[in-house]
Amino acid sequence: MHPVSLESFTKKYKALLEERLRDAVGSLETPENLAKAMLYSLEAGGKRIRPLLVFAVIDAFGKDPIHGLEAAAAIEMVHTYSLIHDDLPSMDDDDLRRGKPTNHKVFGEATAILAGDALLTLSFNMIAEMPEESASDKVKMSLVSRLSTAAGAAGMVGGQVADMEGEHRELTLEQLEYIHIHKTGKLLEYSIIAGAEIAGATAVQKEILVRFAYHLGLAFQIRDDILDLEGTEEMIGKPVGSDTANEKSTYPALLGLDGAKQALQDHLSSAKNALASTGLQVDILTKITDLIGLRNH
Amino acid sequence: MHPVSLESFTKKYKALLEERLRDAVGSLETPENLAKAMLYSLEAGGKRIRPLLVFAVIDAFGKDPIHGLEAAAAIEMVHTYSLIHDDLPSMDDDDLRRGKPTNHKVFGEATAILAGDALLTLSFNMIAEMPEESASDKVKMSLVSRLSTAAGAAGMVGGQVADMEGEHRELTLEQLEYIHIHKTGKLLEYSIIAGAEIAGATAVQKEILVRFAYHLGLAFQIRDDILDLEGTEEMIGKPVGSDTANEKSTYPALLGLDGAKQALQDHLSSAKNALASTGLQVDILTKITDLIGLRNH
Repeated sequence: MHPVSLESFTKKYKALLEERLRDAVGSLETPENLAKAMLYSLEAGGKRIRPLLVFAVIDAFGKDPIHGLEAAAAIEMVHTYSLIHDDLPSMDDDDLRRGKPTNHKVFGEATAILAGDALLTLSFNMIAEMPEESASDKVKMSLVSRLSTAAGAAGMVGGQVADMEGEHRELTLEQLEYIHIHKTGKLLEYSIIAGAEIAGATAVQKEILVRFAYHLGLAFQIRDDILDLEGTEEMIGKPVGSDTANEKSTYPALLGLDGAKQALQDHLSSAKNALASTGLQVDILTKITDLIGLRNH
Repeated sequence: MHPVSLESFTKKYKALLEERLRDAVGSLETPENLAKAMLYSLEAGGKRIRPLLVFAVIDAFGKDPIHGLEAAAAIEMVHTYSLIHDDLPSMDDDDLRRGKPTNHKVFGEATAILAGDALLTLSFNMIAEMPEESASDKVKMSLVSRLSTAAGAAGMVGGQVADMEGEHRELTLEQLEYIHIHKTGKLLEYSIIAGAEIAGATAVQKEILVRFAYHLGLAFQIRDDILDLEGTEEMIGKPVGSDTANEKSTYPALLGLDGAKQALQDHLSSAKNALASTGLQVDILTKITDLIGLRNH
């Protein structure tokens, strides 16, 4: 199967993922408007980085990435729910997401909240629906446990609360990393470890992949902060400089723009070093790492 | 162990449940304010009907109800999250719940939304944490699947959307039942079936218990509607007649007050008949059924 280009890998698994997402929502017996609101945000584009990480990790173990389809869909649902809720008027109050009106702008606030709730809830159903040949009940329960930890109060939701509490205040680098490790890092880590569990990774392999995930997550966030300063509205789908306008602490604000760019390079190198030390077929994972470091949106 | 009074059964398992809820939130590494918001609503009192149903069903099979502790805690978390989100300004906009200020009144809207999100997420962790002697991985996965179905777009969340869409409109009895079966019935049914699965019920027993749950759920809702008319603010913890004020369709509005009372009695009888036909030790379950039919709050 190797070598395969990142482009053809991405194209293939994005298409499978998006079909699975549509099927999962389409097969629900639910009020039409709720299903529409769920699909609106699921289909709003996005890089599908988290699902691609699931597929690429399984691929690195020489297994068929298709075994990660439901787990990948579950993660994209959790990620999408978190965006819908983050954009709400009482949170970041964003009107645009990926260049399109945010969910509550189209469906109203109540339906947006409920669409988020429904996507979060459905994500656990996706794991339950994994075929037996993709995961045993034992692996599925481990995925449920890890997903709820990564997404919940000790993970993503906790990071969002810390982020809100940190607004309009100058944070230390330590506090800023706490926020990012929780708000975005834990779900990225989960994507990687979910792939590893499905592929039957050893404890040592999982340990190395957690280290990879740590550096990848911070690189991802630093790139985000840099893009907010250097991108164009067309590239990032929202106004440029909104972090500064919202008085958000960022890496460039704490380290200077050059310092942030150096930190990005350091984390990318550490991530790729971790990957290389696994002894797996990491070509796709390495390309995704570079993509995250260099992405324009 | 039998006969035991409903009072002593309730007292014992409520205390164990509330301790488990406090422990589950207390052991999270999370921003203090988020943990406080989660606990505020978890500890706001409430009848704990759903957890008690889990315990009582296991008891009916002659098994130790303690095996249902985590499943019961999970259900109470889901129920509590749904109340927090329902009370939000963009939904029912309620200032009081059980006579206390609602979550967003105390913690603000953003934290209330996130506390709800965190409780929903944590509920799946609770199932993952069930000890092996209480549930195999196979039973746990079935509980995850059933909980996400009961709570999600095809269950509770779907019912909430249908409820919102039905406001300020006259509904048929069929539409009203659709709302209640989804908004409250599915989670009550889940409580009962979760207990049955933990106790090792047969398919036939589960079928009868689903019928019991159907009638119990509708009895629960009709009693709620009657209380909104006949209760006092002190009894129900919110203003009397708020359904009429909010132009909500209710059983008394559709059937007349006497007709609603008759329907309540019919559903209670059918529920108890179903119970009797299980051949199980249903004394506690029967008492809970009566309690639901006669409750004052």
